[in-house]
Amino acid sequence: MIDYTLQPIGFIRSTLKTRAEAPRQGAEGAPDAWLEIEPQFADALLGMEVGHQLIVITFMHEANRAVLQNHPRGDESRPLTGVFYTRSPARPNPLGLHPVTVREIDGSRLKIGPIEAFDATPVVDIKSASTRADG
Amino acid sequence: MIDYTLQPIGFIRSTLKTRAEAPRQGAEGAPDAWLEIEPQFADALLGMEVGHQLIVITFMHEANRAVLQNHPRGDESRPLTGVFYTRSPARPNPLGLHPVTVREIDGSRLKIGPIEAFDATPVVDIKSASTRADG
Repeated sequence: MIDYTLQPIGFIRSTLKTRAEAPRQGAEGAPDAWLEIEPQFADALLGMEVGHQLIVITFMHEANRAVLQNHPRGDESRPLTGVFYTRSPARPNPLGLHPVTVREIDGSRLKIGPIEAFDATPVVDIKSASTRADG
Repeated sequence: MIDYTLQPIGFIRSTLKTRAEAPRQGAEGAPDAWLEIEPQFADALLGMEVGHQLIVITFMHEANRAVLQNHPRGDESRPLTGVFYTRSPARPNPLGLHPVTVREIDGSRLKIGPIEAFDATPVVDIKSASTRADG
C-alpha cells in the first residue's frame, strides 16, 4: 500500500481549547483564531491580503481513523451513514475543510475566521477559495 | 517535526491520461471520471446517492512540493505569488480540492464530475459538500 506524508505548515491558536468546546462547523458560532505559519513556509504567504477568502485544510489529529460509518452529527435518530457522505471528523484520512476570511496579518501569523478547529490543531494546506486564483 | 501519513482511499480512472492534458479546474472543460474506492473503505459509501454534491480531495502525487511561490496559472505577466494565496498544484502538501456531482454508482465505483484530476491520481478523502451533512 502506497502512502503519503503530510507536514504541518502551521498550527491553530484558538480560544477553543478542546474538541468538546468546538462547534461542528465554523458558521455555528465559531470564533476567529490565529493561524501561525511555520517559519520555513512563510514565503508561501506572499500576496496574502486582509479580506481574502481561503480554504484552510487541517489534519484532525484527534479523530478516530478506524470509523467508516456513524450517525450524522452524533444523532442516533439519523440512519447509520458512510463517512464519505458526511462531514464527520472520524474518517480514514481526517482532513478538515474550513472556509474562512483573513481578518488580520501579522508577519507569518494570520487571523482567520470563523473557524471551529480547536487550539493546537495542525494545518496542512491553505488555498484561495476562488478557483480564479489557480496557479 | 511531526508528520502525518495518508493512505489512498481510492484512485481516479479518467480519460485524461497525463497532467499535460488536464485543465486547471473542473469547470474549465474537465470530463467526468470514475473514482474506484479501495475495497477496505467501501463501507464508508453507505447512503451515497446519484446527484449528491461532494468535495473530493486528491493527493497530487506529481506536484513539486518544494515550490512556495510562482506565477498564478503559469502566467509570467502575473506577479510572483505565494502558493497559499492561490490554487497552484505546487505546494508543500499537494492536496487537491474538487467539487463534483455523483453521476452514477456501481458498487464501490462512483462516476463523478466534472473533474480535472488525471488518471491514477490518488484520492485521500471524500466529503459531502453540504456542511448540513456534518457527522
